[in-house]
Amino acid sequence: MARTRIGLFGAGRIGKVHAANIAAHPQLDFVVVCDPVRAGAEAISEQYGTAVETDPARAFEHGLDAVVIASSTSTHLDLLTAAAAHDVAALCEKPIDLDLGRVRASRERFAGRDSPIMIGFNRRFDPSFEQLRTRVARGDIGTLEQLVIISRDPAPPPEAYIAVSGGIFRDQTIHDFDTARSFVPEISSVHAAGANVFSPEIERQGDHDSAVLTLTGAGGELVTIINSRHSAFGHDQRIEAFGSQGMLQAGNLSDTAVRHFTSSGTETADPYVTFFLERYAEAYRRELDAFVQAVGAGIRPTPGFDDGLQALELADAAVESARTGATIHLPAEDFDVRS
Amino acid sequence: MARTRIGLFGAGRIGKVHAANIAAHPQLDFVVVCDPVRAGAEAISEQYGTAVETDPARAFEHGLDAVVIASSTSTHLDLLTAAAAHDVAALCEKPIDLDLGRVRASRERFAGRDSPIMIGFNRRFDPSFEQLRTRVARGDIGTLEQLVIISRDPAPPPEAYIAVSGGIFRDQTIHDFDTARSFVPEISSVHAAGANVFSPEIERQGDHDSAVLTLTGAGGELVTIINSRHSAFGHDQRIEAFGSQGMLQAGNLSDTAVRHFTSSGTETADPYVTFFLERYAEAYRRELDAFVQAVGAGIRPTPGFDDGLQALELADAAVESARTGATIHLPAEDFDVRS
Amino acid sequence: MARTRIGLFGAGRIGKVHAANIAAHPQLDFVVVCDPVRAGAEAISEQYGTAVETDPARAFEHGLDAVVIASSTSTHLDLLTAAAAHDVAALCEKPIDLDLGRVRASRERFAGRDSPIMIGFNRRFDPSFEQLRTRVARGDIGTLEQLVIISRDPAPPPEAYIAVSGGIFRDQTIHDFDTARSFVPEISSVHAAGANVFSPEIERQGDHDSAVLTLTGAGGELVTIINSRHSAFGHDQRIEAFGSQGMLQAGNLSDTAVRHFTSSGTETADPYVTFFLERYAEAYRRELDAFVQAVGAGIRPTPGFDDGLQALELADAAVESARTGATIHLPAEDFDVRS
Amino acid sequence: MARTRIGLFGAGRIGKVHAANIAAHPQLDFVVVCDPVRAGAEAISEQYGTAVETDPARAFEHGLDAVVIASSTSTHLDLLTAAAAHDVAALCEKPIDLDLGRVRASRERFAGRDSPIMIGFNRRFDPSFEQLRTRVARGDIGTLEQLVIISRDPAPPPEAYIAVSGGIFRDQTIHDFDTARSFVPEISSVHAAGANVFSPEIERQGDHDSAVLTLTGAGGELVTIINSRHSAFGHDQRIEAFGSQGMLQAGNLSDTAVRHFTSSGTETADPYVTFFLERYAEAYRRELDAFVQAVGAGIRPTPGFDDGLQALELADAAVESARTGATIHLPAEDFDVRS
Repeated sequence: MARTRIGLFGAGRIGKVHAANIAAHPQLDFVVVCDPVRAGAEAISEQYGTAVETDPARAFEHGLDAVVIASSTSTHLDLLTAAAAHDVAALCEKPIDLDLGRVRASRERFAGRDSPIMIGFNRRFDPSFEQLRTRVARGDIGTLEQLVIISRDPAPPPEAYIAVSGGIFRDQTIHDFDTARSFVPEISSVHAAGANVFSPEIERQGDHDSAVLTLTGAGGELVTIINSRHSAFGHDQRIEAFGSQGMLQAGNLSDTAVRHFTSSGTETADPYVTFFLERYAEAYRRELDAFVQAVGAGIRPTPGFDDGLQALELADAAVESARTGATIHLPAEDFDVRS
Repeated sequence: MARTRIGLFGAGRIGKVHAANIAAHPQLDFVVVCDPVRAGAEAISEQYGTAVETDPARAFEHGLDAVVIASSTSTHLDLLTAAAAHDVAALCEKPIDLDLGRVRASRERFAGRDSPIMIGFNRRFDPSFEQLRTRVARGDIGTLEQLVIISRDPAPPPEAYIAVSGGIFRDQTIHDFDTARSFVPEISSVHAAGANVFSPEIERQGDHDSAVLTLTGAGGELVTIINSRHSAFGHDQRIEAFGSQGMLQAGNLSDTAVRHFTSSGTETADPYVTFFLERYAEAYRRELDAFVQAVGAGIRPTPGFDDGLQALELADAAVESARTGATIHLPAEDFDVRS
Repeated sequence: MARTRIGLFGAGRIGKVHAANIAAHPQLDFVVVCDPVRAGAEAISEQYGTAVETDPARAFEHGLDAVVIASSTSTHLDLLTAAAAHDVAALCEKPIDLDLGRVRASRERFAGRDSPIMIGFNRRFDPSFEQLRTRVARGDIGTLEQLVIISRDPAPPPEAYIAVSGGIFRDQTIHDFDTARSFVPEISSVHAAGANVFSPEIERQGDHDSAVLTLTGAGGELVTIINSRHSAFGHDQRIEAFGSQGMLQAGNLSDTAVRHFTSSGTETADPYVTFFLERYAEAYRRELDAFVQAVGAGIRPTPGFDDGLQALELADAAVESARTGATIHLPAEDFDVRS
Repeated sequence: MARTRIGLFGAGRIGKVHAANIAAHPQLDFVVVCDPVRAGAEAISEQYGTAVETDPARAFEHGLDAVVIASSTSTHLDLLTAAAAHDVAALCEKPIDLDLGRVRASRERFAGRDSPIMIGFNRRFDPSFEQLRTRVARGDIGTLEQLVIISRDPAPPPEAYIAVSGGIFRDQTIHDFDTARSFVPEISSVHAAGANVFSPEIERQGDHDSAVLTLTGAGGELVTIINSRHSAFGHDQRIEAFGSQGMLQAGNLSDTAVRHFTSSGTETADPYVTFFLERYAEAYRRELDAFVQAVGAGIRPTPGFDDGLQALELADAAVESARTGATIHLPAEDFDVRS
């Protein structure tokens, strides 16, 4: 079977993760890595024997079947456009863009093309989250009634990043919006409450360090999202799906299965994994594989462009709700767009 | 030491629980039980050797130091008034009344009296919940930032009860409002989303079978309350307090510590306790004891009348929020009333 | 229904537990308490309104249906004999006696009498252990193949007690022998290894502070007993039953369901219950009730005299094995005696 | 830095695991694979681009620094001898040989050589087991007093394998002997009880399908090993270290962190990982890395030849104990040999 020729845009932290996964994937030929900072691209090239480019246009000249876009957010839409122009499949890191208007506008551009786009909501591919979703779908808890997503980062990003992040709802909650939609695709309303309880830096930038959101689904489902930009005990990433017949939980991960028992406490487990690339290492591998299999089979990968768009719609609604206190109702016509 | 002479109003389900606890309490003399239905009162009388009355006025003639009011909600305010008139301490089941206006109006009546009133928010006395609150207060998790209260009943009450319950927020969430306030006394705003996902009967009565609420505290705390009128796996009663230095959880209770391991699943525990009187048996005992100790020491018991009032204020705000979608801000002057 | 008239021998620590349970039992009339130390008996008498005796012979003159024997071990056989002579049912604390020869010899004495004897192996009535046994019996794990009993006390008894305890196998392991036999009634062989790892006092007395035993059942079952006279994290009392189709575990008990999460550890539960009367409070209540029901129904209570005898046989075998290193095989004729 | 040139003997199931780990290790050059069955070697060669040999003598001509010996047990000693003759470091799968006499005899042969030998007791490198050992060593539980090793395979090996396995003690328990020695290096005595409870095939071959062992350490430590050749709920691989100040447990592993809650059971986790190569995948990777680092640093790797020898001594003692029922005392001079 012919292997898929793939290129990588972006040689930063997340780019390196994709590079390693690409190199280890038996169905991929890792052809080229492209980054405006040549040194970064060369580091990856040396390790995996790829070509190096700094200009995206040149990268596309390597006869690619697919690309992974892990460059800075502002370049995503242009690279997606270029990929579509070359009929090259693209796995693009989230978010598509911070500007919902631009994403909406670009939607038409991609609608007519066959080249598939997958958005990098890697958490969909976490083994626990995916099993949970599969089991909800097959009825292990009857009808889904409530969904609770707890998503707390170990520590806030650098202040410089906060400034360009688009705010907690577009940067952190965006993952949880997609997780919510992977269970309840049609969201009818959003209520968001933001708070500033621990970080004066984040407050100075007009952003929140904590948030709680209530989403309602078209079927009456109640979805709760609980966010914090810090967590003393490590990555707190849980999903709890409550249904008419039972409940499914996906819990946190530790590095070991060790428990400690002393006179001051029993059953003490290790703190949870603290680095997101470690927490979601398996998810990144499985995400890439899902992309490769979809491209190979000629089917549209999930989550796709519209999933990225919908998550942004929810983020914008959350921003408005947190500002006004109102519950924001999402127009039903939005859903037509989704299919 | 002189024992406290106590009477009991109400010989129903909850009255029987109080009767057993009164009889077993070494500092109490169980003097009289009063219920308009004589047969109920007599059943208790036979078991514990108390006098029987059907008329409350006669009950107060037994030279009481204290009463437990476990009669129907509509009688609470009148009995509290009578207790105050006789300078008798009262432990009164929640809610004080379903009509917030009446409770507000009655507040003046009790303000000048010395006779202490305790409201039966029994969950404050659950050993796990109380330990959790104590540990939050002493700083085990640093500063409290987020509180999640999950409170799901095993099964909905009978339809007839739903009709007179005052609705999910005044009947079920009322406990969680008090729990929230036991951690975050001053609540600034309430947002509530109700849903109807499993019970056509409840929907027919214009009530919700599920709800999610977001409360914000005066210190920026975010409080989430998640309710359902049913839970396939038993009483789901959890509290999770998240702070700057860590997290404390109070989990569910099973009858045994047995775990089962098979080829289809491992570590399977028993379903959780399903009957609330069993789930909170220890809480009811400890609640009564706290009342007895406070009365004996001449200090005001907690939770008091104003705690009952505040929980009702929050319930009314939730009703309005669920109807309009708006976040309801509680006037700051409310807080002045509380002290 | 006529209530059972019951007397209590022994007003010490364990006697007080039985006294409270007797007083609270709806089918019992607590008639008399008997202890050579009058003050102890009087303390119980004052609380529960019983008669007081210091001479056992006088106690039996109160027209008793049943007695609870919670006096010192050396008096057990004599009191059992007296109870049998008066045709009074007896619930007798373990062990029957420290001298296996005396117990064997006395067996004939009781064999012909109808008055039922129950031996106070209270752990059989622990809700978790009992549920585990019931589920093994009904086949939840297929055929039982291995049983692991971990039984560690929070702290060693006083040195004075060690001296008269009969040694770890007759004093501590005796409970585990009975637990083992409640799953695997016929034990074919015993191997015991004792150790002295933490207590010079215990070593000075020629006793072990720790032990591990391997028992084999007539059906090939392998039973492991692990003992220690101390446990830093509280009472460590677990049973693990492994079978052809799965495993059942009964775990430890904490006072609360609280878990703590910090940067140094997650999911930390409270230390386990440390006082055996608290750990087994429910077991003592249920044991007494089982005795009362058996007496009421006219059936032989379990565990009976022969269960007490068998546990002692195993203890003596363990003593010999620990001394010689040999595996001690129990004669098959022993089993004939049991039925 | 020069990379280590490495060869692999054995292209079977375990050889493939080592092949993948070798290929992925950044400090190794995977030079040659050798197997008498050429097809097996060629399959590995094709994937990783190595040379292929069927004759071990030829394999050593490739200028190797190190070898991994994953061929059948009967070839281990010859290949170790050849490796020593070529001054090539060797990581050799356990056991060294099934015949203790041969291993003892060969010991002299290796004693004078510098070429390091590491024995593949991969479980030492399991992250949980290793952390547990590290924490015991640093005093997290005070003085180690008792060690419980539960080691149950998901399903028995094929009958043909049983026949040549050397019996349960040399084949399965051998790992647990090494685990025991990694905590308590000097074992003074061994008692073993074997049983036949589920497999007529294994019984027919004169082997046991289950076993319980008690080892005593030179410091009085009591070590319990519990084995079964099957486990309905997956790989049951646990260690529990009990000390004067507390306890450490290493638990089982599941593929996900999902829990299920229904009316028939709560907190149900997935069955444990069932395939040993998956259960210990990380251990195999870390074992190879430890070997590479030791070879690179010029230090003797652990576990070494004498660890392999000691595990066999314990296995032989267990065989004798299971046959006679006696506790087998290991001569103290054995320990001198170890250092």
